Amino acid sequence: MSLIEDLQWRYATKKFDSTKKVSQSDIDKLVEAARLAPTSSGLQPFRVLVVSNQELKDKMVPIAMNQQQVADCSHVLVFAAWNRYSAERIDSIYDFTTEERGLAKGFFGAYTDKLKSIYLPQDEKENFEHIARQTYIALALVMAQAAELKIDSTPMEGFYNDQLDELLNLSSLGLKSVSILPVGYRDASADWLVNMKKVRLPKEEFVIEMK
Amino acid sequence: MSLIEDLQWRYATKKFDSTKKVSQSDIDKLVEAARLAPTSSGLQPFRVLVVSNQELKDKMVPIAMNQQQVADCSHVLVFAAWNRYSAERIDSIYDFTTEERGLAKGFFGAYTDKLKSIYLPQDEKENFEHIARQTYIALALVMAQAAELKIDSTPMEGFYNDQLDELLNLSSLGLKSVSILPVGYRDASADWLVNMKKVRLPKEEFVIEMK
Repeated sequence: MSLIEDLQWRYATKKFDSTKKVSQSDIDKLVEAARLAPTSSGLQPFRVLVVSNQELKDKMVPIAMNQQQVADCSHVLVFAAWNRYSAERIDSIYDFTTEERGLAKGFFGAYTDKLKSIYLPQDEKENFEHIARQTYIALALVMAQAAELKIDSTPMEGFYNDQLDELLNLSSLGLKSVSILPVGYRDASADWLVNMKKVRLPKEEFVIEMK
Repeated sequence: MSLIEDLQWRYATKKFDSTKKVSQSDIDKLVEAARLAPTSSGLQPFRVLVVSNQELKDKMVPIAMNQQQVADCSHVLVFAAWNRYSAERIDSIYDFTTEERGLAKGFFGAYTDKLKSIYLPQDEKENFEHIARQTYIALALVMAQAAELKIDSTPMEGFYNDQLDELLNLSSLGLKSVSILPVGYRDASADWLVNMKKVRLPKEEFVIEMK
């Protein structure tokens, strides 16, 4: 199936079948789509947590404002962004990149200097807003990958970020949660949304052509 | 090819072949991937501009800090977000949704009231940050769709947003640019990046499993 067909197939699953689990090989593909996501200046300023522990998932229910999908799904993916940019983080990525490409260390020095001159003077909030945006690229690609594998997923921003960060001990890693994505298999018999028409703006309204 | 193979194939093209144009039917598929993108509460709070006019593309070069790809590519897609949420915008989407689904107008009234109670008291900056994030979902899916069609693309945030908004007259539409995506076909003979290894963090570093 094409990406467009996959996107037409997917929907924000409201009820998961808690008896069905996603295989490890499929989870690996979801994570690989996130890992391959392009990010601003290639910094990959986030991590993906894969939570299958049922106790943790149950504890996420009140944190996710009682959205039961986090408990009923197979795995919860958590997109957790760097709390801010730092010289060490930027250098670490580019040291790795030059090494992987067989280039001299410092090959991208002028570029990383420029990145530092932009990001380091910003306050943490401004840094974080830019970083958080990058996580949505990975979120989107994981949803697309899930749909390709006929795995259901439900993107969520509606949760108490601070509480989730505490539950998963994210601050010790210099990370802050941005979005979560329960994945698994729909319980079609109990899902009010599954048979409703997918609604999107008409193309004529959504697209502006400048020829 | 699978999504993962498509993501491995793609890269941020540094040099486009200005003689090669993307067909209208392929542009339609790119836009369709954006249109199908899931967004927070289904609000689709952005539009996609498709700029093929060469004069406009040329004018984008200084705005995009002299990144020549915006002129050399076939089309520039501009992801332009609502400047803020409003009661009218929220109601308009949900009126359309209820109509499309054959539900009574106001069916989602409690939900839209909740959305308004969250977004309308926020200042424009806070609104916009949330809206801007949604555009990255569409950006990602368009890049994936382009790769599926073996169309090259180069995501860019490095441009003067205010100047682009003025060039494209976005404020009259209540929109603000977030990212741009030149699409077209690589000029492999003149692209310094095309043969460099794609570098991503190792899975062990990128993923945190909680079993």
